[in-house]
Amino acid sequence: MNGEQGSESDSPEAVPVRARRAAVVGTGLIGGSIGMALRARGWHVTGRDANPESAERALQAGALDAIGCDPDAEVTFVATPVGAVAAEARSVLDQAGLAADAVVTDVAGVKVPVVAQVDDPRFVGGHPMAGSEQTGIDGADAELFSGATWVLTPVAGTDPDAYALLRSVVAMVGAEVVALSPGQHDALVAVVSHVPHLAAATLMNLAERVSTEHAALLRLAAGGFRDMTRVAAGEPSIWPDVCIANSAAIVATLDALVADLEEVRSRVARQDRAGLFAMLGQAASARRVLPASAGTPDELAEVRVPVPDRPGVIAEITTMAGDMGVNIFDLEIAHSVEGDRGVMVLVVDSRDAESLHDALAARGFRPTAGFLERP
Amino acid sequence: MNGEQGSESDSPEAVPVRARRAAVVGTGLIGGSIGMALRARGWHVTGRDANPESAERALQAGALDAIGCDPDAEVTFVATPVGAVAAEARSVLDQAGLAADAVVTDVAGVKVPVVAQVDDPRFVGGHPMAGSEQTGIDGADAELFSGATWVLTPVAGTDPDAYALLRSVVAMVGAEVVALSPGQHDALVAVVSHVPHLAAATLMNLAERVSTEHAALLRLAAGGFRDMTRVAAGEPSIWPDVCIANSAAIVATLDALVADLEEVRSRVARQDRAGLFAMLGQAASARRVLPASAGTPDELAEVRVPVPDRPGVIAEITTMAGDMGVNIFDLEIAHSVEGDRGVMVLVVDSRDAESLHDALAARGFRPTAGFLERP
Repeated sequence: MNGEQGSESDSPEAVPVRARRAAVVGTGLIGGSIGMALRARGWHVTGRDANPESAERALQAGALDAIGCDPDAEVTFVATPVGAVAAEARSVLDQAGLAADAVVTDVAGVKVPVVAQVDDPRFVGGHPMAGSEQTGIDGADAELFSGATWVLTPVAGTDPDAYALLRSVVAMVGAEVVALSPGQHDALVAVVSHVPHLAAATLMNLAERVSTEHAALLRLAAGGFRDMTRVAAGEPSIWPDVCIANSAAIVATLDALVADLEEVRSRVARQDRAGLFAMLGQAASARRVLPASAGTPDELAEVRVPVPDRPGVIAEITTMAGDMGVNIFDLEIAHSVEGDRGVMVLVVDSRDAESLHDALAARGFRPTAGFLERP
Repeated sequence: MNGEQGSESDSPEAVPVRARRAAVVGTGLIGGSIGMALRARGWHVTGRDANPESAERALQAGALDAIGCDPDAEVTFVATPVGAVAAEARSVLDQAGLAADAVVTDVAGVKVPVVAQVDDPRFVGGHPMAGSEQTGIDGADAELFSGATWVLTPVAGTDPDAYALLRSVVAMVGAEVVALSPGQHDALVAVVSHVPHLAAATLMNLAERVSTEHAALLRLAAGGFRDMTRVAAGEPSIWPDVCIANSAAIVATLDALVADLEEVRSRVARQDRAGLFAMLGQAASARRVLPASAGTPDELAEVRVPVPDRPGVIAEITTMAGDMGVNIFDLEIAHSVEGDRGVMVLVVDSRDAESLHDALAARGFRPTAGFLERP
């Protein structure tokens, strides 16, 4: 039971090389897009959905090769609503005949409760920061993840090889991987996703209330208002569960937003021109440099870190880099023959190499850094 | 001194018909775009700017025919920052040799203080709800107003012919005119423009603050966050004056927004799934039907209203229609020979004709309505 093509090339009959295999559980927008993205890259994808009709539609749409389970899948993506993830992930992990090196991940927008409920070295939480105004398989797209950020949340118990495998598959579909601890992920998405979504919906409802008395209002809603409220048009059904699963971080962020709005109100009320200009100028500067993606660096560098060959170190190093904003373009783990030591090779923008090196050294690692050829 | 082409066609030498004339004061994004839009439609446009270099650049960019003042201009658009509008508008109105039927308007985002300071029957406040991420003449575009809403704010003292002339010129550059009282305009733009802009800037600054500690945050800023904060990238310099000029309405709207966010916070904190779903579902429905523009009606109707030939009636009727959300596609004023009565002809979507008729009748007018040919 081994999903890697290497096992097949040992067999003289195996021509051509057998396709790599993946599975998806939940064949909506994200699950369907993962299926399409992997199939476009030559993979065999098996999928299922709580609603058999959805799986059938995904098969017809070209997101799947087959309906069902696949114990030979190297990676299984659980792409159900957040409330169903833990049970589905555990059922995949408990599957009879599952390969010992199979990896299971999910795509839910909240990670702490999911990761806490699926405590297994072969499970790595994930969250692709990509979406569409469409929902379901009709919005699925093999290039949905191209250039998108895809968060992975390794923890102390995560198997380093499981992480490295999942990381390479996610990078293969075009996403830029950022490793964060589950807690950091949840705190940060409250700021850049959950609270902005709630604020957009709140603004839309406020405008709607005023427009029932003054029909002209909606005629005045120009580009800025349309942009700001666009996310509020999204399918609402997944959001209440996300809000509840991440309620602590959302409440804290809403409190910060309200406090900041009260400060803005006070500057407007006391006609504090300079204070308003400073606040708006700061926002304009920040928004103008908001990165569209990690981009392609001019020069890559390799940071090599001798590591003890044990779980924990992968989460420590990758989430540290993630939180520093250091983009890891490639990651490899070379195990030593003796078995208790290895070397982690991180490929990063050469401009980030020194700060990553120093941060690793400060934590007691003994990294070495060197430039690579221009990519 | 008569800017209408009719006066010229009486003269046998006048071949071809002399161009209609307009002037702009302030040759930035909006002033420059007005110049381009009118020149593209055959008008002669004269312009000036407090900064002579700006006027020179507008001339080079094709937004102007000449630099300076034009007492023969039928319409002068004062397109300066809000603080300078009143003085500039009065200086145009006091210009030696200005035609008796010349109209002056402005484009500032706040109307109550402007209209209060320029009390003249030939001045009509205006606000084109169009912009660009670019600023200055470099962002100017002859089609900037195409399909955009352009608010006009006639008041009791406004001359009906001045309003009808300005209205026709604004419609000619492709904008959809909505008449509102200055107070209603200011209250409504606080909801759909000023407060959303302040909220976007506040969200951006909150994210920026978090990202100084967690660099990964900005990597997680996907499409929704980018959409929501886009307006915050705009040139901040005009905003403090706008906020201060409209401070009462902005403070009231910020208070409503904060109260609504507190309610959302409480639903998240008490894990009120149904309450969150209701709130998000309502916003999604409202956002999905947000009109992109008034659109083209299937059938037009004409509502004819005999009116006393005096100021006040134009403001009363047009702002009533504006606040009802009834789009006036064309407006004409037929003066009676005797001089004290006239007929206002309003062309509206046939589906709006009955409600407009009834609202006019309820105010003591005696309108008649009839269908027109399909446009």
